[in-house]
Amino acid sequence: MLRIAIIGATGIVGQQAIVSLIGHPWFKITKLAASERSAGKKYREALKDANGSSRWWCTEEMPEEIANMPVEEASTFDPTSVDIIFSTMDAGPAKELEPKYAKTTPVISTASAFRYEEDTPILIGGVNMDHAALLAVQQKNRGWKGFISPKSNCTIAGLVVSLKPVLDAFGVKQVVMTSLQAMSGAGRTPGLSAMDMTENVVPYISGEEPKVETEPQKILGKFTGKTISHASFGITATCTRVPVIDGHLVCAFVQTEKPCTPEEVKRVMVNYGREFSELHLPSSPAHLIDVTDDPFRPQPRMDRDKGGGMTVTVGRIRKDPLFENGIKYVCLAHNTKLGAAKGALQTAEYLVKNYLKLV
Amino acid sequence: MLRIAIIGATGIVGQQAIVSLIGHPWFKITKLAASERSAGKKYREALKDANGSSRWWCTEEMPEEIANMPVEEASTFDPTSVDIIFSTMDAGPAKELEPKYAKTTPVISTASAFRYEEDTPILIGGVNMDHAALLAVQQKNRGWKGFISPKSNCTIAGLVVSLKPVLDAFGVKQVVMTSLQAMSGAGRTPGLSAMDMTENVVPYISGEEPKVETEPQKILGKFTGKTISHASFGITATCTRVPVIDGHLVCAFVQTEKPCTPEEVKRVMVNYGREFSELHLPSSPAHLIDVTDDPFRPQPRMDRDKGGGMTVTVGRIRKDPLFENGIKYVCLAHNTKLGAAKGALQTAEYLVKNYLKLV
Amino acid sequence: MLRIAIIGATGIVGQQAIVSLIGHPWFKITKLAASERSAGKKYREALKDANGSSRWWCTEEMPEEIANMPVEEASTFDPTSVDIIFSTMDAGPAKELEPKYAKTTPVISTASAFRYEEDTPILIGGVNMDHAALLAVQQKNRGWKGFISPKSNCTIAGLVVSLKPVLDAFGVKQVVMTSLQAMSGAGRTPGLSAMDMTENVVPYISGEEPKVETEPQKILGKFTGKTISHASFGITATCTRVPVIDGHLVCAFVQTEKPCTPEEVKRVMVNYGREFSELHLPSSPAHLIDVTDDPFRPQPRMDRDKGGGMTVTVGRIRKDPLFENGIKYVCLAHNTKLGAAKGALQTAEYLVKNYLKLV
Amino acid sequence: MLRIAIIGATGIVGQQAIVSLIGHPWFKITKLAASERSAGKKYREALKDANGSSRWWCTEEMPEEIANMPVEEASTFDPTSVDIIFSTMDAGPAKELEPKYAKTTPVISTASAFRYEEDTPILIGGVNMDHAALLAVQQKNRGWKGFISPKSNCTIAGLVVSLKPVLDAFGVKQVVMTSLQAMSGAGRTPGLSAMDMTENVVPYISGEEPKVETEPQKILGKFTGKTISHASFGITATCTRVPVIDGHLVCAFVQTEKPCTPEEVKRVMVNYGREFSELHLPSSPAHLIDVTDDPFRPQPRMDRDKGGGMTVTVGRIRKDPLFENGIKYVCLAHNTKLGAAKGALQTAEYLVKNYLKLV
Repeated sequence: MLRIAIIGATGIVGQQAIVSLIGHPWFKITKLAASERSAGKKYREALKDANGSSRWWCTEEMPEEIANMPVEEASTFDPTSVDIIFSTMDAGPAKELEPKYAKTTPVISTASAFRYEEDTPILIGGVNMDHAALLAVQQKNRGWKGFISPKSNCTIAGLVVSLKPVLDAFGVKQVVMTSLQAMSGAGRTPGLSAMDMTENVVPYISGEEPKVETEPQKILGKFTGKTISHASFGITATCTRVPVIDGHLVCAFVQTEKPCTPEEVKRVMVNYGREFSELHLPSSPAHLIDVTDDPFRPQPRMDRDKGGGMTVTVGRIRKDPLFENGIKYVCLAHNTKLGAAKGALQTAEYLVKNYLKLV
Repeated sequence: MLRIAIIGATGIVGQQAIVSLIGHPWFKITKLAASERSAGKKYREALKDANGSSRWWCTEEMPEEIANMPVEEASTFDPTSVDIIFSTMDAGPAKELEPKYAKTTPVISTASAFRYEEDTPILIGGVNMDHAALLAVQQKNRGWKGFISPKSNCTIAGLVVSLKPVLDAFGVKQVVMTSLQAMSGAGRTPGLSAMDMTENVVPYISGEEPKVETEPQKILGKFTGKTISHASFGITATCTRVPVIDGHLVCAFVQTEKPCTPEEVKRVMVNYGREFSELHLPSSPAHLIDVTDDPFRPQPRMDRDKGGGMTVTVGRIRKDPLFENGIKYVCLAHNTKLGAAKGALQTAEYLVKNYLKLV
Repeated sequence: MLRIAIIGATGIVGQQAIVSLIGHPWFKITKLAASERSAGKKYREALKDANGSSRWWCTEEMPEEIANMPVEEASTFDPTSVDIIFSTMDAGPAKELEPKYAKTTPVISTASAFRYEEDTPILIGGVNMDHAALLAVQQKNRGWKGFISPKSNCTIAGLVVSLKPVLDAFGVKQVVMTSLQAMSGAGRTPGLSAMDMTENVVPYISGEEPKVETEPQKILGKFTGKTISHASFGITATCTRVPVIDGHLVCAFVQTEKPCTPEEVKRVMVNYGREFSELHLPSSPAHLIDVTDDPFRPQPRMDRDKGGGMTVTVGRIRKDPLFENGIKYVCLAHNTKLGAAKGALQTAEYLVKNYLKLV
Repeated sequence: MLRIAIIGATGIVGQQAIVSLIGHPWFKITKLAASERSAGKKYREALKDANGSSRWWCTEEMPEEIANMPVEEASTFDPTSVDIIFSTMDAGPAKELEPKYAKTTPVISTASAFRYEEDTPILIGGVNMDHAALLAVQQKNRGWKGFISPKSNCTIAGLVVSLKPVLDAFGVKQVVMTSLQAMSGAGRTPGLSAMDMTENVVPYISGEEPKVETEPQKILGKFTGKTISHASFGITATCTRVPVIDGHLVCAFVQTEKPCTPEEVKRVMVNYGREFSELHLPSSPAHLIDVTDDPFRPQPRMDRDKGGGMTVTVGRIRKDPLFENGIKYVCLAHNTKLGAAKGALQTAEYLVKNYLKLV
């Protein structure tokens, strides 16, 4: 078993990372770290608020051995005490601490701090595994034994998985999208106000649209041996917040380079990712994409947990009446599973098996 | 006071029509009609279900004089007993009965039955009042003393109001839109299931997208003297249902003919509709469009009631990074006020004052 | 017109006080005050957060003349510059500042700071107007020209209004109650988390049950000339928070001293408060209590706005199968209207007319 | 493996029964039956509505072998073709068909049709297993080889589990309770309206309170050898519906015969059910009751899935200020798991192992 540290363990993403690792066949959490405020306490105690109420926000129960584990301080954490580091810190501390850890130890990160660095790939399971080779460039550039491998923005995770087979088969010229994003994406401290999110929609998410309009082109770009040549299509997005707990829904209008019918698009999506699935990584689903013919689906509450929260559900694939070579569809991905901790875990599994070759 | 009949009075739109007419300075409800099932009962009794519970769904109290009014049968209703008919029936009975009424009496309709007829305008307050002249063509064609004036689809009401000044000033080349529609639009018998609409989004509304993709071009078309020449821009839409009671939100991506800045778009929207407002119709708001600079607005729950539910709120006007001459914005309209009974009432007021010249 | 200051004007209760006073026939807001952070700014500016988004949380629009009014600092506010002070501050600053204001000026308060003082009544419109005489005792005791008149806890406002006629007619021996409270009662900075309040119930509200179990006995007590002799019945309560915006629902199990039928209870409730209504105070409803026979009512969203949010709706009055002389019913009151700013305003109107005799 | 038929398989409870049986170690579904409308179709086809949309309402995927199973007609179903019948029909058909099946085959039923028969126990796992002996009386009385074993009303399932240890240790004199019930309890065809259940509470559930006020006394009664002598305490209840998907919350005010402290009540609850857990039935949880010290819990969304939806969570145990020997607490049970299909399955497991001795 490889020894794993969760850094940022008391936050909601850290909690989800812990839950994702329950009963994992390769990885065992041996260390927890967080900010100074939590350091020195047992994990269970570190989560108690002033009222004695627990800030453990997962519906899965806190594993007993984790509850009793001491929380170390992130800033003084010894990265050589573990084999892999899961960083679920916020962008600020991640920017400072992840490079220190990476000197000696691989860092899988849910933070955005290094996502836009030239020598850093944004890996999404089954989509761009060849970009993993950029980590060797990063290691060489920076003189690190470890590396930093960040996950993508959670909103685009599902879009990118669904676009990849379309791009490969027909080319993509442009994407217009509106996201209907779940509230869990806004975190928990304090997160969104119930008075704002009841029987309401908030049509803006700070800082989201610029990420959504640029990350996919990097993820879907080509690794040149030294860096990634971004895909050339443009994206325009409006990102909204809806009263849903988990599951980001994206309404996509895609113009392809070559003509394609909805049936052809369905076929390439359904057939997509078989090779990746055959790696049988512990967190990978049987199907990366599930295409539904039910016009009323995908729905966040009904479809987000498909494939353990790792399958993207696509529905309503139809011809676009406006754009030449246009198709429209709706896709759904679980933002705190595929789009966050569990997606990062899947990447870690891939890297451990195929890049580090440790299992 | 002009005598008004509400036909379809027991349905939710009929109820909203009744509420819209409380204390109206020109109109007085003197007749109610509905299907055979309700005919012969007092209105209050006609609304009681098998449990004795009232199917009055408005939060405003049922006016006492309406409660005690007898409900006549729509199929045998005498249209000459009133001055104006408000038809809030479903499309089926509307198709059959409205022409019978229109032989003698003006019919303002919330049904879609006649919306797509060549000689029938779809009037939206302040947007296309010149189309009212098409009613004379309709009257002549059909040998009617009255007419049928249907309201628009509720989803596009806000979009069309916001597009009109943009079209006038800069031209419109194409519109890509995603709607986040309120549940009240699906009616009440039985309407949507709570199990479907709690903590969820349903990404499909039967029959909605074809209407949304074609009605605006008629509404924003040019009256030629004989018919309406549809506007030439294309629309593509995805229509979704969100857990909101009232208020349809539309995320619009608009490509204009001429270049325009967000500031210019804001200016033409803010200045729009003054002439119409100066008619001082009882149901018209002071401003047809309110443009907000708060990036988190418009929000359905917070903004839908602006201007008595008759003002369209536009926010997030910004440059589109993908399309040449592209702008993006979000607009909100109250679907059961501007988009339904109260919008139809505003049209009635306009026609009574400027077309029929009865007040 | 009497000059009114709103102290704590930037908070949600202060905002609701402002909205309650729009177009008031007797009162005119001439001053606004808040904490140091807001002082010196125009009201509109004081409400802007770091994103430029407005923290104006009412669906009614901010009145233009209020928007441009300067905000003074509460701690240095000159109470002699107005005729009446509305204090909507939190309990902490209220405890310190209200006595300073009361030296010269009547203070109507929504805070709990003075609620439990021996010489201070908790006035609820139509319930215990005779307790107003205790204010003279307070003024004498403390050497104040003004006074402090606090409103009740919002949860019990509806219960107390519904209990009063029962107490008068049949006596009350005990009350068992469960409240299903709206989220607006928890305020807005930050208020409740959307992740806690979506598709969920929180079965605890800090500090609420002790207030609910003791305040009604004071409010329903007898004024002895010097103080209030508390009513002798006992109350046990469980207070829960439900995903409702406004409107506290209370499920009450009441044991009366004398036998009574549900019909008798209905009758005394329906007939209750006529004398008070005939004072025609601007904020008073036509009926203090509305009794519904619809078994599915009262419902918060449908019934909270009855009587401008000032009418208590009672339903499901029925015999209790367990307790001798037991009746059960459900009552609903608008927690941010009757239970907060507008309820305090109604008290102010009563005091101005009948105690201060200023109108 | 024992052969199981699900009768009423197309309904929501039937679907939940199917899900509960996925991968079951003792039971294998070999037959499905439903009404005439579905008979003769494959299960997957039988669930399709007019729009081609599936009425499969579980978030778990429909097992492929079930999807392809033919649906037989309930009225002509041959009960001898299986070992155990799960009846998830409505009360009407259950009343007629269950006795026919029971002539030859054990029937585990989620319907209420036989719940109140003298010779029929209402079994709840771990609470009243000795009542199973009444089934022999039923078999003898009616000349059946099989039997009918109905589950309890879903609302009281959690209450009864939590009351049992209190009754055993301290005696119970009376119970006052308010339920906050989830929407799934109202079924799906059509179930509750989204317009009623959004941002709202409905304070009435048809026919619920009489069941809640009488069933617990039977379940907690004593088996006398011939029938059940009901427990003597009284219950009064108000049952409300709240916007929660799953999980019925009960606020209980319990007066015990003997004095007891909250700590003592906690202790008897925590220690309760060990013997039953040691039977290691496949659907039984490790703990029948989980007592939480967090004052803000139990919460439906966070706690309903504990123990696979079979653990009752109790919180807020505290002294009652009104009643002598009074305690108050809040308890939560998953209404569609413990309170419905999975609870019935647990009973089936018990009966198969300890009464029928088939495994």
